[in-house]
Amino acid sequence: MDLFLVVLDLVGSFVFAISGATVGVRHRLDLFGVLVLSFAAAVSGGIARDVLIGAVPPAAFADWRYLGVAILAGAITFFRYEDIERLRNPVQLFDAAGLALFAVAGATKALAWGLHPVMAVLLGMLSGIGGGIARDMLVAQVPVVLRAELYAVAAALGAAVAVLGAWLALPPAAGMVAGALLCFGLRFMAIRHGWSLPVPRPREP
Amino acid sequence: MDLFLVVLDLVGSFVFAISGATVGVRHRLDLFGVLVLSFAAAVSGGIARDVLIGAVPPAAFADWRYLGVAILAGAITFFRYEDIERLRNPVQLFDAAGLALFAVAGATKALAWGLHPVMAVLLGMLSGIGGGIARDMLVAQVPVVLRAELYAVAAALGAAVAVLGAWLALPPAAGMVAGALLCFGLRFMAIRHGWSLPVPRPREP
Amino acid sequence: MDLFLVVLDLVGSFVFAISGATVGVRHRLDLFGVLVLSFAAAVSGGIARDVLIGAVPPAAFADWRYLGVAILAGAITFFRYEDIERLRNPVQLFDAAGLALFAVAGATKALAWGLHPVMAVLLGMLSGIGGGIARDMLVAQVPVVLRAELYAVAAALGAAVAVLGAWLALPPAAGMVAGALLCFGLRFMAIRHGWSLPVPRPREP
Repeated sequence: MDLFLVVLDLVGSFVFAISGATVGVRHRLDLFGVLVLSFAAAVSGGIARDVLIGAVPPAAFADWRYLGVAILAGAITFFRYEDIERLRNPVQLFDAAGLALFAVAGATKALAWGLHPVMAVLLGMLSGIGGGIARDMLVAQVPVVLRAELYAVAAALGAAVAVLGAWLALPPAAGMVAGALLCFGLRFMAIRHGWSLPVPRPREP
Repeated sequence: MDLFLVVLDLVGSFVFAISGATVGVRHRLDLFGVLVLSFAAAVSGGIARDVLIGAVPPAAFADWRYLGVAILAGAITFFRYEDIERLRNPVQLFDAAGLALFAVAGATKALAWGLHPVMAVLLGMLSGIGGGIARDMLVAQVPVVLRAELYAVAAALGAAVAVLGAWLALPPAAGMVAGALLCFGLRFMAIRHGWSLPVPRPREP
Repeated sequence: MDLFLVVLDLVGSFVFAISGATVGVRHRLDLFGVLVLSFAAAVSGGIARDVLIGAVPPAAFADWRYLGVAILAGAITFFRYEDIERLRNPVQLFDAAGLALFAVAGATKALAWGLHPVMAVLLGMLSGIGGGIARDMLVAQVPVVLRAELYAVAAALGAAVAVLGAWLALPPAAGMVAGALLCFGLRFMAIRHGWSLPVPRPREP
């Protein structure tokens, strides 16, 4: 179970790091700037979660493998950007995978630290969207999470399924895999079909 | 006393959430983006305070009512924006009320956790301005706190009065109400009469 | 040793505060905005470090002298900006000194709290660059750390030398002074001679 959580976290960190590095390359940062963005996108969500539940030092600082994974992903993206770019909509795709993995793992860890199920869902969502928010704020952009189709909703629903699975005492992997698939699928369909939430129409622009 | 603090925190969260949601609607975020901004504006100041004094998980995550209050305020603002807008300068007004309530409650909580009175004033000011800073940074704007008339000064003075009241061993509510009224009044007059602090004149723009 | 760390921290805070205040004046913030930026630039790196290693309340909030140093530096910069400006490239110079001091002190403190040497280097780098990141994000700019010549590299190498010195059981001051000089010298040469890291060339701008 613990090993499962760590592996999930490392895989999620890797895909988020690629998403961060891609944004860094597009903003023409230098190599270290790209690695910083890579690391920030990879671990900010998990760090926010760990600091908020009191699990310090956060996994990302207690365990050098998160740093290694982020640097690896950042370097691959930096030096092989054309390959990464050739995949269609790479940022969105990697972002959706990282979102799903982090939302589910974050909610599970918050539950394990004794938080209320409702707040565990929120912390799962926040650890899912925290990396993307940090990534976008570091390049002075409005975070995509605040505009994107069903972004936070997908994370919250994925986290809710994982929490529900734990509440029903299903095998941990079952609820987490179901939640991650739901989150990824929802986000993927939202991108593909332009599903979105209502947008307000203020009188003046 | 504890109940009083919690009620103050919830009311402050509600008005800050409206201020956050208003900014979100004006930036044409989608429903979830508005709710995220609503929650961020409501709880970022309190979260910063709680993380810094070591009170984790922060009240905003240990207690689902903060989330509920923020969602309620965000939804009202999203679906009844015209009503909110009809009030003159709604963001500034709600912001001043939230500022006053949070500055006073934040300073009182920091004192209760054993911080030095001077730093309790600073933490009160920071919990007052933290929500607004997070709100503005999330939409990639320079925080209004850094430009606005007497914004941080009002928060600091309100927090200082609350700390002074505790130091003089007055009934807790007395110092807190006086501090909150001073902060709100000062901010209100600053908006109304354009009171402001000196601005530097660098040689080149 | 403890006194040495505190003095280093205070001196680093002072120079970072001047760098923050200079950015604030250039963005024409009011007096309190300049002081907020001054304090944020001075202590954000150290606060991030302390929160992440679990040393709460952070030194910047447990000890009023950090606030005093930041306010002093901010006020000097605000009222004597022409003098500060007359020094060539004041932001970059003060920034390099603060970077060196904070990277070394941050790494040493992380080691003292039992972190893995590799992560102590990372935390040293982060406490070095955290203040500058907060400073730039508060005025809605892409942090200079993500673009500047050898910025984060200099911080990481300085932190690494300090950690290496501790590992070799040298007198603490030796490794720290050597690390700080390396970091400052590298950053200074990078500014003077335009040394930089490779920048990616994405196909489309």
